[in-house]
Amino acid sequence: MTDAIQDLYSDEHAHCFGCGHRNTMGIQLKSYLNDAATSASITPPAHYTGGIPNHLFGGMVASLLDCHGTASAAAFYQQHLRQSDKLDATLERFVTANLNIDYINPTPINQQLTLKGTLVSIEGRKVRVSLTLTSGQTLCARATMLAVKLMAS
Amino acid sequence: MTDAIQDLYSDEHAHCFGCGHRNTMGIQLKSYLNDAATSASITPPAHYTGGIPNHLFGGMVASLLDCHGTASAAAFYQQHLRQSDKLDATLERFVTANLNIDYINPTPINQQLTLKGTLVSIEGRKVRVSLTLTSGQTLCARATMLAVKLMAS
Repeated sequence: MTDAIQDLYSDEHAHCFGCGHRNTMGIQLKSYLNDAATSASITPPAHYTGGIPNHLFGGMVASLLDCHGTASAAAFYQQHLRQSDKLDATLERFVTANLNIDYINPTPINQQLTLKGTLVSIEGRKVRVSLTLTSGQTLCARATMLAVKLMAS
Repeated sequence: MTDAIQDLYSDEHAHCFGCGHRNTMGIQLKSYLNDAATSASITPPAHYTGGIPNHLFGGMVASLLDCHGTASAAAFYQQHLRQSDKLDATLERFVTANLNIDYINPTPINQQLTLKGTLVSIEGRKVRVSLTLTSGQTLCARATMLAVKLMAS
C-alpha cells in the first residue's frame, strides 16, 4: 500500500491532534487516495463518548471528518496538478475554511468506522470535497468541506 | 454563579468527552446561560494542535462549538418552557443534527477562548442556535447548529 496522505505532510505540519504522525498524544488518522476517492478506517478510543450512551462524541465525528477532509483536499489537489503535467507536484497542506456536517445516525463506540472523500471542485487554492462517515452499512454522518491551501510561511 | 448547563445533565447523559462532568478524561467545558445569550471560557490543552503551528486543531474548534451549542439549545429550550408558564421544566438533553462551521481566523493555542451562543428559533423539539468562538478581540470561528431534543430512552 502507498503512504498515508498524512505521512507525506512536512514535519512542520505533521503535529495535528487528529492525524499528525508527530503528535504522540493524538488519534493519528491515516487517509489514502485510491483513484477518484479517499478512504480511512479507525476505531476511536472508547473515552470519546458523547451525549448518547455508547455512541461517539459529535466533536470526534467532526474531528475525523476534518482530518480526512483536509487530507483528501491535499491529495486531490496534488493529483490534479500531476494530471496537468506537473508530474513533480508535492503534497501541499490544506486547512479548513468551512465544514458543514449532517449527523444522520448515532455513531457507535468500539466499532471500526470508515471515512470516504470525493472531489467536488478545485478553484485556485480552494478545494471542495464531499465526505461520509459510516459504520458497517450505516451512514452516520455526511459533510461538505471547503479547504484552502496553506500559504508558505 | 448558577450551575453550568452541563452540570445539570442527567447522570446517564453526562459522560460526553467534550463537556460531561462524569468523563474524567474529557475537556469538561462549562457553559452558562445569562438572559439572552450563553457563554463559556476554556484554554484547551496544548496537545490539541492542528495543521498550523501553535494553533488549535480544527476538530477541537468543532468540538467546543458542538458542546457549547447543544448546551445552549438545552438552556434556551428550558428557558422558553419556563417563560411559557411551565415553571418546573427540567433541562433536556439535545444532540446535534447539523453543525455548519466557518473557520475565520486561526485559533491560538495556550490562550483563553470564549464561546457565545444565541437562540435563532425553536420549532417543536428542534432548536437552532448561532455560535461564535473568539480569542480576545479576534473572531476565530462562527457556526450555526440545528440541535434536536433527545427522546426518552
